[in-house]
Amino acid sequence: MSLRIRDLSVHDVRFPTSDFGDGSDAMNPDPDYSAAFAILRCDDDLTGHGMTFTIGRGTEICVRAIEAYRPLVVGRDLDEIEADLGGFWRSLAGDSQLRWLGPEKGVVHLALAAVVNAVWDLLARRAGKPLWQYLSDMTPQEIVRCVDFRHMRDALTPEAALALLEKQADGRAARRAALERDGYPAYLTSAGWIGYDEDTIRARCRAAIAGGWNHFKVKVGADLEDDLRRCRIVREEIGPDRVLMLDANQVWDVDEAIDAMRELAAFDPLFIEEPTSPDDILGHARIASAVRPIGVATGEHCQNRVIFKQLLQAGAIDYLQIDGCRLGGVNEVIAVLLLAAHFGVPVCPHAGGVGLCEHVQHFSAFDFVCVSGSLDGRLIEFADHLHDHFVTPVRVEKGRYRMPTAPGFGTEMKAESLAQFAWPDGPVWRQRLSQGE
Amino acid sequence: MSLRIRDLSVHDVRFPTSDFGDGSDAMNPDPDYSAAFAILRCDDDLTGHGMTFTIGRGTEICVRAIEAYRPLVVGRDLDEIEADLGGFWRSLAGDSQLRWLGPEKGVVHLALAAVVNAVWDLLARRAGKPLWQYLSDMTPQEIVRCVDFRHMRDALTPEAALALLEKQADGRAARRAALERDGYPAYLTSAGWIGYDEDTIRARCRAAIAGGWNHFKVKVGADLEDDLRRCRIVREEIGPDRVLMLDANQVWDVDEAIDAMRELAAFDPLFIEEPTSPDDILGHARIASAVRPIGVATGEHCQNRVIFKQLLQAGAIDYLQIDGCRLGGVNEVIAVLLLAAHFGVPVCPHAGGVGLCEHVQHFSAFDFVCVSGSLDGRLIEFADHLHDHFVTPVRVEKGRYRMPTAPGFGTEMKAESLAQFAWPDGPVWRQRLSQGE
Repeated sequence: MSLRIRDLSVHDVRFPTSDFGDGSDAMNPDPDYSAAFAILRCDDDLTGHGMTFTIGRGTEICVRAIEAYRPLVVGRDLDEIEADLGGFWRSLAGDSQLRWLGPEKGVVHLALAAVVNAVWDLLARRAGKPLWQYLSDMTPQEIVRCVDFRHMRDALTPEAALALLEKQADGRAARRAALERDGYPAYLTSAGWIGYDEDTIRARCRAAIAGGWNHFKVKVGADLEDDLRRCRIVREEIGPDRVLMLDANQVWDVDEAIDAMRELAAFDPLFIEEPTSPDDILGHARIASAVRPIGVATGEHCQNRVIFKQLLQAGAIDYLQIDGCRLGGVNEVIAVLLLAAHFGVPVCPHAGGVGLCEHVQHFSAFDFVCVSGSLDGRLIEFADHLHDHFVTPVRVEKGRYRMPTAPGFGTEMKAESLAQFAWPDGPVWRQRLSQGE
Repeated sequence: MSLRIRDLSVHDVRFPTSDFGDGSDAMNPDPDYSAAFAILRCDDDLTGHGMTFTIGRGTEICVRAIEAYRPLVVGRDLDEIEADLGGFWRSLAGDSQLRWLGPEKGVVHLALAAVVNAVWDLLARRAGKPLWQYLSDMTPQEIVRCVDFRHMRDALTPEAALALLEKQADGRAARRAALERDGYPAYLTSAGWIGYDEDTIRARCRAAIAGGWNHFKVKVGADLEDDLRRCRIVREEIGPDRVLMLDANQVWDVDEAIDAMRELAAFDPLFIEEPTSPDDILGHARIASAVRPIGVATGEHCQNRVIFKQLLQAGAIDYLQIDGCRLGGVNEVIAVLLLAAHFGVPVCPHAGGVGLCEHVQHFSAFDFVCVSGSLDGRLIEFADHLHDHFVTPVRVEKGRYRMPTAPGFGTEMKAESLAQFAWPDGPVWRQRLSQGE
């Protein structure tokens, strides 16, 4: 059954998370987790859902950017898109007038992700499969054809990508069965936000341990003395054997990062995440060589495959943290998964916020089944915020994501949430804005 | 006299330049030179003008982004801004919710540039000086205080920047007098657009030679055979002694660039501009070492000081091409000029489009007077499009920019141009859009 995309609607939805300090870190003291939410509608009421993840102000800019892609997507036929997924991606990412506003970064790239992911949601729903299975049922040739290799061929050619995928083809069925049985390992971020006081941190740690968690991330970078204090609390609570990770959210300069990590090394962290600017490939490489054996992780703010390519070429990262809404949608995520596998670096997706966990579980599952074939050193971030607003929220049990089974991407937000938290005219915001006056 | 910023208005203005092939290149076949134009208004009708440069679709996204900065700028006092220009910049660039949408790149950074530059226009107008003189009258300490050194201290500390500026302090008056007498050298891009046929190219070259031009840039990268053909035409017209530059506008992969330049080396180009992705520091470094003695130039799409820092650290560029509207306004341009001088790389600004020449002449003049103290290897790009729409258009004579003398930035667009070319409701577009129906 061929279907044509008939309509695009966009919603600005914001959650007042800054009220509670949820998500607070050294760079972002008061995030209101938000989304510009794109819904594509086909002839027979099949819908596809995609989103940008934002933290409040400026979501309206993303709404406008998603609308700018309307003429490039409305009217297109799903069969034609499916027959040339790489060409479809290039036709959007390569629109020269919109590309000028990035290129391939910032608001236009965030909006591209929302539109591209909504199309993949349509395709997976139409096929009756959760996205990770839809991807995992593609042949190696089909997967390679999803990728725009422009500006990455010096690191990975289509031929090398194909060989890498073919090498993993035999074990697909067994790995898929293992995922369906055991789930995918996760780690928890919700314990160590900078805005939390000591009692909250201790209570969160104890609850997490009781819930079966073994990995804990602490936010650092606002003030070194306070970082040491909170790391000491978390290490006391989790004991010597559970895993501690640190996250500086980009606030340090290169030498500051190296100096701070000399002190924080006392708490035996697995990695330091975002030690400096996400644009600084050479800086990450210097930090990585200075802080070994502590690892370096980054990616939630890395704009595209070209930055990830270089981080890998330079040996600058030990953990690659893709984001489901910052790379230009599924096609570019596949490109980065292929690069990471080629360089032998584990992918540990960024998640949390709103909707990010729902996205990345598909990518990690696909990575395991088809690309890297491995779980070694791999974990998906988890934060227990705002899942109730989704029609098919993630299921996480005993520190593992349970594989999604509903057809599609699983990123459809409930209609009542879109309405309640609509900005600025939904009831939640109308009330708050009138109180502020 | 203290003044407060009372209002911000934003205009979407587009010129249908794609009708004539002006500005056409391998990546951008049909640009409509455009701008999201910001006007700040103070109590006594002093106005400050700033803009993003865009190429058509998506300008409305930049309009929305400029409006998002409104609460951060309207209501502020010019004296307070002038007393802490670095803090002012950080308060806008560092707004955490807007920063998330970059960070420091793409649409929010383009919009930041428009707002920040409009503020500098206000300050220079109030002082009764053209911007380059306003900047050149600052002390070295004042210049350093304009810069946010976050994420660049590993390459250049505030102390090293101060020393660099102090070394040039004595010669300022003589260099300023030389500029006022002789102007600043320029080169011409208008001859070699990809959309031009052979007769147009020859006629443009001859007219340019007659006008006193010695440097000529040719667009390459769409098709190597056609590139060779057009380079042959231009080299025939300009002779062996005038200077030829090439510009690939990002279309090549790293190895493609190296291969193509082996062929194009026959025409003895000074540099190859944008051989690959502007994000690819390591790629530019590989290309630079492979094509020497031909230089590598890039910058018009480089998003911020962190990318430029690395291009310089890696020895990846021989010419640094700042853009007046892509870096985050005057403050970040100063940061990049300091980095370039520290690494001994000449700055040759990107210009053309609409308004870009008007911007960058101030930066190059300030660079010569206060920062690098040199004209060696330095040229400002020039293209003779759309200057008539500005109240104080650039003056270029015999291949040199004449120094601007009017107070301010010189980027104020005529009110009738803003009205005529307003998109989509100005008369020019209303007529075109109704014809298209």
